[in-house]
Amino acid sequence: MIRFYNGKVLTFSGGINITADEVWTDGNSIAYVGPYKDDRPAFERQIDLKGDILMPGFKDAHTHTAMTFLRSLSDDMPLIDWLYKKVYPNEAKMTDQAIYDFTRLGIMEYLTSGITASFDMYLKNDSYAKANIDAGFRTVICSGMNNFDRDITNIEREYLKFNNLHELVSHQLGIHAEYTTSMERMEYMVSLASKYKAPCYAHISETKGEVDGCIDRYGMTPPMLLDSIGFFRFGGGGFHCVWMSDEDVELFASKKLWAITNPASNLKLASGIAPITRLARAGVPLAIGTDGAASNNALDMFREMYLVTALQKYFTENASACNADSVLEMACCGGARAMGLDDCDDIAVGKKADLIVIDLSRPNMRPLNNLSKNIVLSGSKENVRLTMVNGRVLYENGEFFIGEAPESIYASCESFMKRVRE
Amino acid sequence: MIRFYNGKVLTFSGGINITADEVWTDGNSIAYVGPYKDDRPAFERQIDLKGDILMPGFKDAHTHTAMTFLRSLSDDMPLIDWLYKKVYPNEAKMTDQAIYDFTRLGIMEYLTSGITASFDMYLKNDSYAKANIDAGFRTVICSGMNNFDRDITNIEREYLKFNNLHELVSHQLGIHAEYTTSMERMEYMVSLASKYKAPCYAHISETKGEVDGCIDRYGMTPPMLLDSIGFFRFGGGGFHCVWMSDEDVELFASKKLWAITNPASNLKLASGIAPITRLARAGVPLAIGTDGAASNNALDMFREMYLVTALQKYFTENASACNADSVLEMACCGGARAMGLDDCDDIAVGKKADLIVIDLSRPNMRPLNNLSKNIVLSGSKENVRLTMVNGRVLYENGEFFIGEAPESIYASCESFMKRVRE
Repeated sequence: MIRFYNGKVLTFSGGINITADEVWTDGNSIAYVGPYKDDRPAFERQIDLKGDILMPGFKDAHTHTAMTFLRSLSDDMPLIDWLYKKVYPNEAKMTDQAIYDFTRLGIMEYLTSGITASFDMYLKNDSYAKANIDAGFRTVICSGMNNFDRDITNIEREYLKFNNLHELVSHQLGIHAEYTTSMERMEYMVSLASKYKAPCYAHISETKGEVDGCIDRYGMTPPMLLDSIGFFRFGGGGFHCVWMSDEDVELFASKKLWAITNPASNLKLASGIAPITRLARAGVPLAIGTDGAASNNALDMFREMYLVTALQKYFTENASACNADSVLEMACCGGARAMGLDDCDDIAVGKKADLIVIDLSRPNMRPLNNLSKNIVLSGSKENVRLTMVNGRVLYENGEFFIGEAPESIYASCESFMKRVRE
Repeated sequence: MIRFYNGKVLTFSGGINITADEVWTDGNSIAYVGPYKDDRPAFERQIDLKGDILMPGFKDAHTHTAMTFLRSLSDDMPLIDWLYKKVYPNEAKMTDQAIYDFTRLGIMEYLTSGITASFDMYLKNDSYAKANIDAGFRTVICSGMNNFDRDITNIEREYLKFNNLHELVSHQLGIHAEYTTSMERMEYMVSLASKYKAPCYAHISETKGEVDGCIDRYGMTPPMLLDSIGFFRFGGGGFHCVWMSDEDVELFASKKLWAITNPASNLKLASGIAPITRLARAGVPLAIGTDGAASNNALDMFREMYLVTALQKYFTENASACNADSVLEMACCGGARAMGLDDCDDIAVGKKADLIVIDLSRPNMRPLNNLSKNIVLSGSKENVRLTMVNGRVLYENGEFFIGEAPESIYASCESFMKRVRE
């Protein structure tokens, strides 16, 4: 058992609560949350918080982790050139080993930013899953079915395999997007969702062009089209959700579909600003993702949280829009629930020990006027003192404990990049 | 003398250059930039860059440093409430000691973000200057004349005093803004600028309401009004510059006036997005500021640089707008020149030793596809390994060397806040 003591504990039940409780973990779970007790078990480690904040980890609810290989190789260019000249040709060079190495690089970056789980959609899921398991990191794989898949029946096999492989890995059903997936294939996905009574996810209404194209093809927006074929019968949600009609918003609210926002990516690719304020007002559940490093370029939840609130103030011309506290809840609890990790959403007995310690001794956290607003509005990776996933400390005081030295991971990554850049 | 070796040196002459040169500093200046030499002087310290990047420090070209006291005390509220319920009543409580303490807190945060100089406009400049001198930090004080000043002749006395006080401190003439300063007072400022042949600065066209109000009052936009009274006869520039007409842009370009952008503040207060792409195309010189912590809430140049480029991509609906490299140049060289620190703009013999080391061993800098884009697009405070101002290392590996322990500065700040929050 591990004991966290002498600090503040931030939890979310009915808004943000900050207490002086202790937290004990036992194996992969939280075993005790409460005041000091004289009657204590023998701990394998006692972590003095020194007044710092223990809180649930952030969840990256939409990402393509191994795209770290494209960071700063594809910037400042129009979307079409970015996709066809940089992303696709280079992705074709990806090997299983490269997926493994660049996933590990991405996991390192998540840990520096206090991210304890990712909802990932990308390539070569066996290597991807292994990279997460080897590092001790939690991930939910989302299938990204599209017209380029050679064998769509593999999705069902992966769904069954990855939901029974390891406690750190699970799998959700999804298509890449309406514009990359034929109606026949989308209907196949719906048949799988019905068979397993499973939620379904997709990139949805990321760009105006995508929405216009869908209306041209089907006479409906992407959310309405997907709903019309039963895609959301068992829930799910959409990544991006930038260009949402009132009807789309109503659909998401009534079916409690997750809108997973990726503000940095939407700026960089000139896609737009998601109407978070409108979605929240309608009761749509919200979560936050970084998207991949090719379109961000950081995997940093502090950047995303800041952008979610700051962009809404600009977008709605209302400086009181999108309270920072609500954004913190999206990043911690929303993300967990969006990807089906309900037992990773908060600090409570029985929940998974996916925890972070926020360092208050850095100048950007001072004065201590309002801790949760400090985290969202001036927090940064320098404030992540410790990241624990599934009861194991994977990152502490700038050092990584993921079974391999950073220099070794970097060397593998650079060796692959030499071949890519040729 | 201090020697930096075994790394990369990033300079700006004619675009971004990255070499394997060494850099030697002597006292407050750069004494040598070039390849390894067998014939070397006795160094007091030799800093092994270990492959990291040595580059010119970032310059925060518009800020109100001591407003750190209002961080997270005034968020998620409309501008008018923010100003009249939080900012003004609390500022009235500021003592000389509080200005000193919260300036030191702000300087600590600058150092963590690789900022080596600030262009500050705020209160109680004697205490402010002392805080900078005591910390070893470089600052340019801008007078913020307005209708609340009891004795406007103090501006001239401060101009003379602070330009002759200490090598780390200088002073520029400025008014707070047209909407807070009477025509009589603005004309007095112009008379000072003429007397000293000095550039003049002001908050300019930050909000649409400000521009509309100025047109109502004078029939001109703020830039045209100020120009009409001779405000820019010897150069200068504007802070914010969000709502600029084509005529305003032409004026700034033809007179080479600095447009100093503050993107995070402009989002938070719902002011808008400055037309950086249009300004750059017209040839307006550009620099970047954080504004104060009440309206940001971080003093972090990585956040600002990222926002400058990312927001332009969104704003112009063009993912290739506002290249990251140009933003890096604004942050380093532009800022220095905007505030009259031409000898702090780059790494070259004879320039001031205002330098930073960017740590490439963190995952957000990998792979090493493009170093300057990595800094702007995925860089963060975790990458600032060392900050040197005027030849002295003030920050290294997370530790501060400013003559007082962080805990002591924090304790002074918290003690004042207790009185403010009562």
